[in-house]
Amino acid sequence: MTELISAVDAVDVRFPTSRELDGSDALNPEPNYSAAYVMIRTSGGDEGYGLAFTVGRGNEVQVAAVRALAPLVVGLPVEEVLGDLGAFSRRLTRDSQLRWLGPEKGVIHMAAAAIVNAVWDLHGRREGKPVWQLLSELSPNQLVDLVDFRYLEDALSRDEALDILRRAEPGRGQRTALLLQHGYPAYTTTPGWLGYDDEKLVRLSKEAVAEGFCQIKLKVGADRADDQRRLRLAREAVGPDIRIAVDANQAWGVHQAIDWIQSLVTFDPYWIEEPTSPDDILGHAAIRRALAPVKVATGEHVHNQVMFKQLLQSGALDILQLDASRTAGVTENIAVLLLAAKFGVPVCPHAGGVGLCEMVQHLAMFDYVAVSGTTDNRVIEYVDHLHEHFTDPVRIRDGRYLAPTAPGISAEMHPASVADHRYPDGPVWNGEATA
Amino acid sequence: MTELISAVDAVDVRFPTSRELDGSDALNPEPNYSAAYVMIRTSGGDEGYGLAFTVGRGNEVQVAAVRALAPLVVGLPVEEVLGDLGAFSRRLTRDSQLRWLGPEKGVIHMAAAAIVNAVWDLHGRREGKPVWQLLSELSPNQLVDLVDFRYLEDALSRDEALDILRRAEPGRGQRTALLLQHGYPAYTTTPGWLGYDDEKLVRLSKEAVAEGFCQIKLKVGADRADDQRRLRLAREAVGPDIRIAVDANQAWGVHQAIDWIQSLVTFDPYWIEEPTSPDDILGHAAIRRALAPVKVATGEHVHNQVMFKQLLQSGALDILQLDASRTAGVTENIAVLLLAAKFGVPVCPHAGGVGLCEMVQHLAMFDYVAVSGTTDNRVIEYVDHLHEHFTDPVRIRDGRYLAPTAPGISAEMHPASVADHRYPDGPVWNGEATA
Repeated sequence: MTELISAVDAVDVRFPTSRELDGSDALNPEPNYSAAYVMIRTSGGDEGYGLAFTVGRGNEVQVAAVRALAPLVVGLPVEEVLGDLGAFSRRLTRDSQLRWLGPEKGVIHMAAAAIVNAVWDLHGRREGKPVWQLLSELSPNQLVDLVDFRYLEDALSRDEALDILRRAEPGRGQRTALLLQHGYPAYTTTPGWLGYDDEKLVRLSKEAVAEGFCQIKLKVGADRADDQRRLRLAREAVGPDIRIAVDANQAWGVHQAIDWIQSLVTFDPYWIEEPTSPDDILGHAAIRRALAPVKVATGEHVHNQVMFKQLLQSGALDILQLDASRTAGVTENIAVLLLAAKFGVPVCPHAGGVGLCEMVQHLAMFDYVAVSGTTDNRVIEYVDHLHEHFTDPVRIRDGRYLAPTAPGISAEMHPASVADHRYPDGPVWNGEATA
Repeated sequence: MTELISAVDAVDVRFPTSRELDGSDALNPEPNYSAAYVMIRTSGGDEGYGLAFTVGRGNEVQVAAVRALAPLVVGLPVEEVLGDLGAFSRRLTRDSQLRWLGPEKGVIHMAAAAIVNAVWDLHGRREGKPVWQLLSELSPNQLVDLVDFRYLEDALSRDEALDILRRAEPGRGQRTALLLQHGYPAYTTTPGWLGYDDEKLVRLSKEAVAEGFCQIKLKVGADRADDQRRLRLAREAVGPDIRIAVDANQAWGVHQAIDWIQSLVTFDPYWIEEPTSPDDILGHAAIRRALAPVKVATGEHVHNQVMFKQLLQSGALDILQLDASRTAGVTENIAVLLLAAKFGVPVCPHAGGVGLCEMVQHLAMFDYVAVSGTTDNRVIEYVDHLHEHFTDPVRIRDGRYLAPTAPGISAEMHPASVADHRYPDGPVWNGEATA
């Protein structure tokens, strides 16, 4: 009997993070970190887990989007899917009717991400390898076969992508060993949420340094005087050698971003993240030209590889912040990593939320081993929330992510956590609507 | 008693258009034209109708997105909403949790469009005016107050927008009279669907000329030899003086688009529509530079005003094809029309689908009366499908849209049409899944 994908289920899971203002920023004052949690099962009894992250209201729409894609997946032969994961991704992103809902953006694309990542998780489990390692052991040709080049070729040809991967091939073994020994550098956003008071900001900033982080991040963009005060306090707390990134979460127009950040430069911000609309490629390029040497970073809301291509082509980015479940999962992120390598821009993944740290570490570690070949100026975001709900939570030591060794992509949640946080019927919610 | 918005309902309505291959193109081989049909009711008994158009599978996700926005609307005082429709639109597009699902793109933004248009419909009905006229009678200051300038000011300031509207103000009365007398020019896509055979293409092309259209449009991009043959047949059928636009529906990469269209120039295509990804601003600019004097047109999948801003800033467009329900409805389209006027680019709205002709005519006519002040090189798309389901269907005479005179935005469907085409339980579907 051919083994088939027998089920694709999605659950609406929400955490009441707004009660403590964890995750509060200029445009997200009271998020309830949530996920459309996806479980894939095969007729042979194997499983794979993925998720799409949202911040509360509307998570049911995200779940509906996963369910709309599920009929394209259920019934497919497992070996055929795992044997050509590029074709599988295109099956999800190119469906002639469903693509109207994007195309390749918004909930339908994030739903593809959740399913694609769950299938990579399944693949890793069956191979007995964490996904970063599974990817790092694929040949350059196998990796390039995963990429959808339709809209990329004016910036990155198949041959250029192959060249990038072949150049990195000889050092794979050595870097894998270094990674397993030392982990991958991280920075922490934990001190800087906008809803935290000054005392908590200072205390958490000092703790971050004591824990070995070489970079912290502060949310800005709601009130300029507050930003100046908070950034001064943080700089005093961490000293001159720790990098402080600031993150406006899209609060500003182009001119306003330039003006606002210029009023903060005295505190030496390392990068300004999401200064304006994530869709504004030309705007980011103008901001970068005006604010250098302050770096410009974006990516968590950049919806697909065509947008990343243009951010790179137009010189809009110093730092590319890919996301595990905004673009269409591992498969599309391989293309994003190759684009970044082509343009020489470091990738510092967006994380936090629900399970994003768990998933993006695999992408950054694959990038180090097999694509860019370096961790110079690269850090993975770290936020110390909600990891306890995952069966293979991230491990941070001395400000670095330790490489995961369990098979899969680390997105599986404890069944009890899923049951407790089901919305709206789980006991945590008790019928309470999301704020 | 203050009159409140008492209900926002959404219905999943689908038409089995794939049975005749109406609407078939390179990326949409067998669409079932569908809509998340939105009905707003007030406690005083007034109604407003809008919709978001999709092409079949996934329309239930679009309906779920409308329902996710509905709680932001139900219970609001009607006069407060209608008195500040700019604030109302921002309420929908800036919700701190729901915007994560976009932001301002995909189903959540199309849901905002459906609701915003339904509220404009309500407004028009209460004022006893078609929406084009309602808009055309607002003062420049009232119109500019509707615009969300947050991400636009580097390209269009409030003062520049006011100047544009003030320059057009003196001629409003004269142009309104001309519009009511002569209507607005149209072109027809009816002959050119990819699923039609050569005989049908030639017959419908000749009929279009006989009916007074000065432009037709052909779908291209699936097979180059077919495109050459079909374009030759169409050119022979209509003669040298009728414009023939071609539409690739995003089929190509940048270089491929240039190469393919160069092989069609002998048949004098007027514009190439959607040559590549709708997200590829820089790609459209490169295609335009390479293919002039063939014009480049896009817009039906351009998801918000920030993308239109950049398409204009980068010189990527000869023709801007706004859509009634992709960006957030009438309110955001006022900004798009002002941006186009600033950059001197003619707006030729996308239509067809379900109710798009009915809605966009109001925007084009408002543009003529109060924004650009001209119909030169401007045409509204016309497709002769599904109009019989609307209570105020478009009226075409001698290749022109006659100005609607009924109050509202013309998006109301006959109750029997809605009941018959409800998915999946309406009698037209009889339990059959969408193809």
